[in-house]
Amino acid sequence: MQIDAIYEPVQKDLLQVEEGLKDFAQADFPWMRELLEHILNNGGKRIRPALALLAGKLYSYQPDLLFPMATGVELLHIATLVHDDTIDNSLVRRGKPTINSLWGQSAAVLLGDYLFSGAAHLVSSTGNVPVMRLFAQTLMTISSGELQEGFMAYNLRQTREDYYQRIAAKTASLFSLAAQSGAILSQASEEAVKSLKDYGHNLGLSFQIVDDILDFIGEEEEMGKPVGSDLIHGNITLPAILFLERHPQSDLIEKAFGKGSGEDFERALEGICNSAIIEECYRIASDYCSRACHALKTLPHNASHKALLDLTDYVIERKK
Amino acid sequence: MQIDAIYEPVQKDLLQVEEGLKDFAQADFPWMRELLEHILNNGGKRIRPALALLAGKLYSYQPDLLFPMATGVELLHIATLVHDDTIDNSLVRRGKPTINSLWGQSAAVLLGDYLFSGAAHLVSSTGNVPVMRLFAQTLMTISSGELQEGFMAYNLRQTREDYYQRIAAKTASLFSLAAQSGAILSQASEEAVKSLKDYGHNLGLSFQIVDDILDFIGEEEEMGKPVGSDLIHGNITLPAILFLERHPQSDLIEKAFGKGSGEDFERALEGICNSAIIEECYRIASDYCSRACHALKTLPHNASHKALLDLTDYVIERKK
Repeated sequence: MQIDAIYEPVQKDLLQVEEGLKDFAQADFPWMRELLEHILNNGGKRIRPALALLAGKLYSYQPDLLFPMATGVELLHIATLVHDDTIDNSLVRRGKPTINSLWGQSAAVLLGDYLFSGAAHLVSSTGNVPVMRLFAQTLMTISSGELQEGFMAYNLRQTREDYYQRIAAKTASLFSLAAQSGAILSQASEEAVKSLKDYGHNLGLSFQIVDDILDFIGEEEEMGKPVGSDLIHGNITLPAILFLERHPQSDLIEKAFGKGSGEDFERALEGICNSAIIEECYRIASDYCSRACHALKTLPHNASHKALLDLTDYVIERKK
Repeated sequence: MQIDAIYEPVQKDLLQVEEGLKDFAQADFPWMRELLEHILNNGGKRIRPALALLAGKLYSYQPDLLFPMATGVELLHIATLVHDDTIDNSLVRRGKPTINSLWGQSAAVLLGDYLFSGAAHLVSSTGNVPVMRLFAQTLMTISSGELQEGFMAYNLRQTREDYYQRIAAKTASLFSLAAQSGAILSQASEEAVKSLKDYGHNLGLSFQIVDDILDFIGEEEEMGKPVGSDLIHGNITLPAILFLERHPQSDLIEKAFGKGSGEDFERALEGICNSAIIEECYRIASDYCSRACHALKTLPHNASHKALLDLTDYVIERKK
């Protein structure tokens, strides 16, 4: 299913989010505007703002609160990408040069900070204290997850549980925040907020697992970044963990670190891709999607509800 | 005057802030605790939390709100230091190795993010929407000021006005936030909040000017960082700007960029230090302090009021 078709119930609202991002790029200084326009107009899927809007449309939808919230959630996401690329020294993201590759690492660190604070500012404009607290808490969870990823890099002894804990922090927490905040700002009941939190958490886990699969099996052109990026940076994701579970004596993974090409690197990619591992990873991702769907069970059945269900299919089927 | 004597009205409260920082360092992961303890126990002057507490003690002081606010303001300050050191690749701060020098740039970027979000989380625990909005706004102002500093580096054509605008954003805004938020959380009138904002702004400008003077004339041992750091990084501060105003044809400043030692570097330091420039910089800093004192005029006269006045003397007289 195409993402645009799924977004149908909030298509117009997502245009408002795009407008909000454009407004945010109108900084005081021309050089800053250039940086901001480059990064905000990045061809992203806008899945996080869509989540906030769709969750809101299950209840008493308030565009004045939902638009800044959805825009803030996307800004926060973009901020984390800018810092990630800086840390990994990545040169390309979604086929476009990264901020750090164009303007240097220092500008990228500070631009990330500016985006973080812009996100906080937008969220604070909702005037909703629980949502603002949740936002700050999520920011802490994400950065602690990213720190964890850094400290666990190149560590071959990590388990699936380490991995799940990490992606729950660095990815699923923001999906949760988006879905929850949409519900909170639309006067959903506490129970409904809890359900949307679960939905976002499970959808986020699935999303990240598929991201990590695509890093191995995706097409470089479609992904807009080199295949095997995670291995290059020593980031051991689910496919590599499952490989190590099956071949505890193998040095294939270890030998591929820091490479990006050459025989060792290709052998590691093949070892992971030409096996039942990818299939198992997809099965695990699908399980999380089932849980996400289950969490929606008691919520109002309308077009947004259907869109949230469809999103779980999209997350599995997507090619980039 | 000694800083401890000035802090007397809030001495016990500052110990609570220290406790708050220690609590914050109790992270889930041992490696993270180590990073946090290293950076939070940094021998800082804690001038920003002191400002929040002193401003609060002018009015109806509420420790439950003021402690997290003051701790949050200090965390935010420490976060900016961590990112600054990363960007400048500084190896030492206050005589201690920096996070980036010990654990690498990536950890430093992410730890800074974690501290930012921790600060936002503490501030959100006040439940005060205006303060939370002010906090987010200040974060934006600071990072845009830092970005500006980066983009203006090595630019010999900058004016005093460029400089004042920059330090207002990167330094004075946080002093303002501290003083204002202390007042807001203690039910001060709008007028009083405005006065404390002015006080913080002017004190902050003065503080940064003296910082920039000390970078030229301070003792390396006392400062805990190399003399002339700003010149090394192409950061053109007030002393250099006044020198360039007087000697528009000189290439002394330009030649000192990126050095840190050698004849060219020493000549630039001497050119600035052995002249009336430093005196003029101090006169400008004192003018801002006078404005800070003036802003306090109509506020309640108690021990905190006196401490806020004394702080303006301290800011000028300090040697580090």
